[in-house]
Amino acid sequence: MEHLGRHVIIELWGCGEIINDAALVERAMRQAVQAANATLLDIFVHEFSPQGVTGVAVLAESHLSIHTWPEYGYAAADVFTCGSTTRPEAAAEVLREAFQASNADVRELERGVMPPSIKQSRLHELANV
Amino acid sequence: MEHLGRHVIIELWGCGEIINDAALVERAMRQAVQAANATLLDIFVHEFSPQGVTGVAVLAESHLSIHTWPEYGYAAADVFTCGSTTRPEAAAEVLREAFQASNADVRELERGVMPPSIKQSRLHELANV
Repeated sequence: MEHLGRHVIIELWGCGEIINDAALVERAMRQAVQAANATLLDIFVHEFSPQGVTGVAVLAESHLSIHTWPEYGYAAADVFTCGSTTRPEAAAEVLREAFQASNADVRELERGVMPPSIKQSRLHELANV
Repeated sequence: MEHLGRHVIIELWGCGEIINDAALVERAMRQAVQAANATLLDIFVHEFSPQGVTGVAVLAESHLSIHTWPEYGYAAADVFTCGSTTRPEAAAEVLREAFQASNADVRELERGVMPPSIKQSRLHELANV
């Protein structure tokens, strides 16, 4: 086991007005989930007043979230997936295109990398079974 | 504007059996949201078969998520908040205690830091208004 999950953190700037439209944000989220080869369990999208949208998709493989600040042309997104068949980086690309971002920063964190102390302790337990 | 949001990434190992119980995970999430001084808009919790729980809380200030792997004693969490009155680090502490984690790694990412090129472009636009 190298890591249990992949967590892709996405910063999108220079976005179009679409990021202030809950229906269009939801559509982009659904396309992103599909591109990531993930399974949607539930989706929640909230439009704030006077502006801004938050969307969270619950996935069988973890989650995808979006929070937008239309006044800055900024959207924050993250995609967390587990399993070897998912492609969170493809979701990032779909969001970048859908939001017409002029500037994208995408970085990936490995999640669930077992610390050496925990590994030792588990090996010890198994040896004593 | 230095940054628009704070994104706290939480790795918890050596967790107790509570991380396989959807009701207890949900209770911990609600306590964590309260500790973070955030406002809960909606919450989803899903129990997987044969094991594992995913929970996502949609906040007025962004989101909190949890994904657990009871077979490894591991829980992945993240708390994204905006605004100056929220305390995402307090949510991390509540989750660590609730899940009885022996090992916790908590790191914070600044989200929504405007890239220099975008800043220049916005200044240029404003100067021409």
